[in-house]
Amino acid sequence: MMLSLILLDEPSDSFAGVFTRNKFPGNPVLLGKKRLATGNIRGVLINNRIANVCTGSGMEDIDCLLNELGKLAGADPEDFFSSSTGIIGWKLPVDEMVAAVPGVISELVRGSALKLARGIMTTDSFPKLRSAEIGDGRVLAIAKGAGMIEPNMATMLCFILTDVDIPRETLRRLLPGIVNRTFNRISIDSDQSTSDMVLAFSSGKAGEVEEDEFSRVLEGVLKDLAGDIVRNGEGTSHVIRVVITSGADPESAQALARAVVNSPLVKTAVAGNDPNVGRIISSLGDCAGNGGYPLVPERVTVSLGGTPLFRNNRFELDPDRENKMTAYLKDARLQPDLTGYPEHNRTVDIEIDLGLGDSCAEVLGSDLTHEYVTENADYRT
Amino acid sequence: MMLSLILLDEPSDSFAGVFTRNKFPGNPVLLGKKRLATGNIRGVLINNRIANVCTGSGMEDIDCLLNELGKLAGADPEDFFSSSTGIIGWKLPVDEMVAAVPGVISELVRGSALKLARGIMTTDSFPKLRSAEIGDGRVLAIAKGAGMIEPNMATMLCFILTDVDIPRETLRRLLPGIVNRTFNRISIDSDQSTSDMVLAFSSGKAGEVEEDEFSRVLEGVLKDLAGDIVRNGEGTSHVIRVVITSGADPESAQALARAVVNSPLVKTAVAGNDPNVGRIISSLGDCAGNGGYPLVPERVTVSLGGTPLFRNNRFELDPDRENKMTAYLKDARLQPDLTGYPEHNRTVDIEIDLGLGDSCAEVLGSDLTHEYVTENADYRT
Repeated sequence: MMLSLILLDEPSDSFAGVFTRNKFPGNPVLLGKKRLATGNIRGVLINNRIANVCTGSGMEDIDCLLNELGKLAGADPEDFFSSSTGIIGWKLPVDEMVAAVPGVISELVRGSALKLARGIMTTDSFPKLRSAEIGDGRVLAIAKGAGMIEPNMATMLCFILTDVDIPRETLRRLLPGIVNRTFNRISIDSDQSTSDMVLAFSSGKAGEVEEDEFSRVLEGVLKDLAGDIVRNGEGTSHVIRVVITSGADPESAQALARAVVNSPLVKTAVAGNDPNVGRIISSLGDCAGNGGYPLVPERVTVSLGGTPLFRNNRFELDPDRENKMTAYLKDARLQPDLTGYPEHNRTVDIEIDLGLGDSCAEVLGSDLTHEYVTENADYRT
Repeated sequence: MMLSLILLDEPSDSFAGVFTRNKFPGNPVLLGKKRLATGNIRGVLINNRIANVCTGSGMEDIDCLLNELGKLAGADPEDFFSSSTGIIGWKLPVDEMVAAVPGVISELVRGSALKLARGIMTTDSFPKLRSAEIGDGRVLAIAKGAGMIEPNMATMLCFILTDVDIPRETLRRLLPGIVNRTFNRISIDSDQSTSDMVLAFSSGKAGEVEEDEFSRVLEGVLKDLAGDIVRNGEGTSHVIRVVITSGADPESAQALARAVVNSPLVKTAVAGNDPNVGRIISSLGDCAGNGGYPLVPERVTVSLGGTPLFRNNRFELDPDRENKMTAYLKDARLQPDLTGYPEHNRTVDIEIDLGLGDSCAEVLGSDLTHEYVTENADYRT
């Protein structure tokens, strides 16, 4: 188990959190929601391996850890968040963790979040850290991934730090929408875990910026990070991007895009570089027909990586197009280099125009490979 | 490609059909819905390999085939259904198929449906045929499977034949509900294909029976057949049965059961004989929280194969129970014998009591294995 710590130089009252909607939230999620009412926050204590969900003593375990942390860091234990990821159902090894707290404090690094980004890695093949300049400061975010990407965890954690001055209320008003437009647009195995959380902290030391600019910059950082989450991991050999345009309404555009990106049949075909595009049409029609979403077959056009394949309620396929699509899929395949980073940012683009209205949706997902099964079939041993 | 034929001795006006709700229905589905208005039906012409969906000439292709069939069988071409399963997007090889029609007629077998059950197999490892006696006659049904089970097809076809006398209106009134309680309770990869259809025919020769008795017997036959569909196939190493009791309402009980049985994380854990039961709780909580279904964590109890694991909002796990569950999962593993038939009918039972109302749901699904990925990643070659 790895214990990591975010310790702010000074307590800050400008912080925000977005938490999983899972009905069996982990103890860190329950605590985190309470902490939102706190005046000041000093940091977050994070562990991997065990998610601290629905264990009888989970809340006492956190108290015990944060008391030790508060004592050694000279801070109020109630000024800390707790964040855990890992196996659901097991109890935290509290004694071992308490003994590790002094080391975590003494090894804090100032001026770089790379160590932290590495510390929260589990089966990640590379640390996920993105940042951007804004005004006289920066916005920085680190994350660990979800599901297929981090099959040992199936949990997404993200911590956002900025030194520009964003008032507490503004941060809390902006964060849910930005999370919705970034992390909630990736879909790995359609499970939202018991422990997902996104926390944001502003120190205010670098002065004020325009709210709109902050929102735009943060969204860019989180969008890149969301892409990294999908791209990472031994189980992913292609990132699939489904873009729906001209949808009747935002809800149906989202639902249809998710249905295509989550279809096991589409995912396995992409894994095999097989342009079995009938499966795209089938998953779209299944979701529309069984979910009650508007869709007029005659108005739908579909292409794969720019190659048209469906229009006027019929397929437009020929051997040339099939070969072109196969080459496209092979070219978009991810083969991580020796450092674990993927060698390119290419995606498999499935473009669907519904010809109905002006709603759009974009969802990132991953293919379904042997490595996914291997990692998930017996990950606890 | 294999061409098969169901030819009734005499035209019958007692027939019924239930079709996919996919918004891109195959041409056989479009034709089938029209045929329901026909007075009499003589049979069904069935092919595998190509599903005849959204090709420009698909309806003319069917006309051409049925004209040849009508001519050679001395019947009206408009008295036949067409049924296709296979790749979506490709055109039927009509000339080749027309040339095969005489052989299909001359090789008709009387008194046994086994040849037909074999004829519609694709990657099935065994033919799926179930029957039961009723009154002075029988109800017989054959099927080919879906999704993970028949990854080459992702389509479910079922043909029901009975010689007892069930009036047209009765058959049409009963069939949708029975399909809903049997085939719609299996969930392989959550895709409903473009071509799913269930057709039923009554010759009436064996006399009348009570409607209730017929309904009960047909439901039993289709329930067994549904189990066979899940159990079949190289890709399935465990059949998972999720039973929800004390649900608040039928809709939420169904949705929650499906969420658990379709969770890739649950499916891969079962494939690996790993009792990673936290994933059951997580998928349940995700569906309830994000789908807006009633769930009170404190009232939920969960067990796996009779071993309790969750109660009072906490896990009740210990090494003994984990070992017991591992042994249970290993014991439920399917290992087809040399003939392709599975050697037992055991399932992995996930029992969830919601403690809210009196609604129940039962859904059968399958685990997620390497063979599934292999079969689906490049099945067209």
